[in-house]
Amino acid sequence: MAGFKGCRKIGGSQIRNLLKAKDVFLFDCDGVIWHGEKAITGAPKVVSTLLKQGKNVFFVTNNCTKLRENYVKKFYRLGFTDVMQDHIFSSSYCLALYLRDVAKVQGKVFVIGGDGVRSELHKAGIPFVGDEDDTPDATIFNCGLASDVKAVLVGHDDKFTFLKLAKASCYLRDPDCLFLATDADPWHPLQNDRILPGSGCLTAALEVASGRKATVIGKPSPFMFQCISSQFRVDPAQCLMVGDRLETDMLFGTHCGLDTMLTLTGVSQMKTAQEYKESDHSINHSCVPDYVVDTIADFLPAFEED
Amino acid sequence: MAGFKGCRKIGGSQIRNLLKAKDVFLFDCDGVIWHGEKAITGAPKVVSTLLKQGKNVFFVTNNCTKLRENYVKKFYRLGFTDVMQDHIFSSSYCLALYLRDVAKVQGKVFVIGGDGVRSELHKAGIPFVGDEDDTPDATIFNCGLASDVKAVLVGHDDKFTFLKLAKASCYLRDPDCLFLATDADPWHPLQNDRILPGSGCLTAALEVASGRKATVIGKPSPFMFQCISSQFRVDPAQCLMVGDRLETDMLFGTHCGLDTMLTLTGVSQMKTAQEYKESDHSINHSCVPDYVVDTIADFLPAFEED
Repeated sequence: MAGFKGCRKIGGSQIRNLLKAKDVFLFDCDGVIWHGEKAITGAPKVVSTLLKQGKNVFFVTNNCTKLRENYVKKFYRLGFTDVMQDHIFSSSYCLALYLRDVAKVQGKVFVIGGDGVRSELHKAGIPFVGDEDDTPDATIFNCGLASDVKAVLVGHDDKFTFLKLAKASCYLRDPDCLFLATDADPWHPLQNDRILPGSGCLTAALEVASGRKATVIGKPSPFMFQCISSQFRVDPAQCLMVGDRLETDMLFGTHCGLDTMLTLTGVSQMKTAQEYKESDHSINHSCVPDYVVDTIADFLPAFEED
Repeated sequence: MAGFKGCRKIGGSQIRNLLKAKDVFLFDCDGVIWHGEKAITGAPKVVSTLLKQGKNVFFVTNNCTKLRENYVKKFYRLGFTDVMQDHIFSSSYCLALYLRDVAKVQGKVFVIGGDGVRSELHKAGIPFVGDEDDTPDATIFNCGLASDVKAVLVGHDDKFTFLKLAKASCYLRDPDCLFLATDADPWHPLQNDRILPGSGCLTAALEVASGRKATVIGKPSPFMFQCISSQFRVDPAQCLMVGDRLETDMLFGTHCGLDTMLTLTGVSQMKTAQEYKESDHSINHSCVPDYVVDTIADFLPAFEED
């Protein structure tokens, strides 16, 4: 319950009891089971052991840059040899489902985003446009605008330009044009103390330009869990959400009524979790994890003692 | 006083009395004295008459895209033949003053912005870098970052890219690196129902990426008025701020203790001003103008009756 989450560092038999008690494990990917192209030590073993024990294992990622097929390949490449495509829920896949099945969009989608988003839209049969028709000297003063754009979609886009922002702003002048974002992640850590701006930056720019708020599909919005539960039998009480970011993963778990576990292999650290716990603002309490482990590799001894 | 501003539509003798009572006139430019490359009808006559009467006339614009010399040329081109450079206070000019005289920045400035900003920095003797050294295939994973960057500056930039955003985000990881913005304007109207995203969009993106708030130099921040009063003798009680945007021009006037006048030739309309006046949120009251006119050309009959 918000405000009473434990933020409890656990190990040994406590982990064993928790793993026994849960049937469904939701893992964030980057920072939890891998860092870029390197698996977290022990993570492939954790996933395969859970699967062998008959647990349901899902992957819920705000990363919108890959098609689900390509996630399967990445899992395999990094040593996770038993992950199935149907168990991967990326923000771009869920966004395509939202447009097709919830919003039932009738018209084109203007895309700010890369191949992952475009491929998922294509697979879902949703027509989309981007900036492919613009000449190199196109500006918002002279460029063409597509007719029949009924949604603007923002995801990670390392080819983001001022013109894309301007075109999207113009489409959003139509109050019937939907405004959707894969996620609101502010940034992602890179090596050498650099950071990669997240989709949340591009969404914020467009929110200011349009005076509107985007509907966010990824965590912490509960829609990704709704996608899972519409396809699989999952009881929230039987689920453990494991992630590395308090403001997305833990908040997502709280929103969906799941127990939550923070691993310290990614963005958020124990100090911040405790500050949130002791905060006077109840909104922060929803970001506090129930449990904390150093790494999901801490699951391994619990399996061995079994 | 906030909460008691009149929002009073005035004409005839009321305008004459107001013009007599004030010695200093601050005009926003776009939407007040011109629309793009077209002067508001009567505006050149208004300005030249005020000057002939010995009034002080200043121009305070959040538009950072031009050097002050080029504003003088634009004024001349549009029929304002007696405007002097020293009376033009653009956000890029004031930003250069801020960096040189207030922040006394020791090091380079990373610029997101166009020629106007760069030229003002150059004239103020402030070294700056942008993305000029990046190869076409540069990404945040492989690009160079300049050493000794002590400030990041965001202004209007129609060549804004994801890489600029990413580089600026990395520089701002250093808490000693200043974060400045010319203005927070969300958008500007164009013809054909299009809009141009304002600097405020780019600033918002960088605020999300950095987790920091920018210091805004332009209206509604009072710094532009401080620039004027450090160079000229101006008594706030003798000033009238004339603008077309409630959230920038009117709020700026209120912040600086000036009487304010909204003209209806630009972005904001009477309905919104009245909604702000009747709002329960006192913050909105600071955006309410003291006076409202259809256009500054309404000053002309007051001159004639003199």
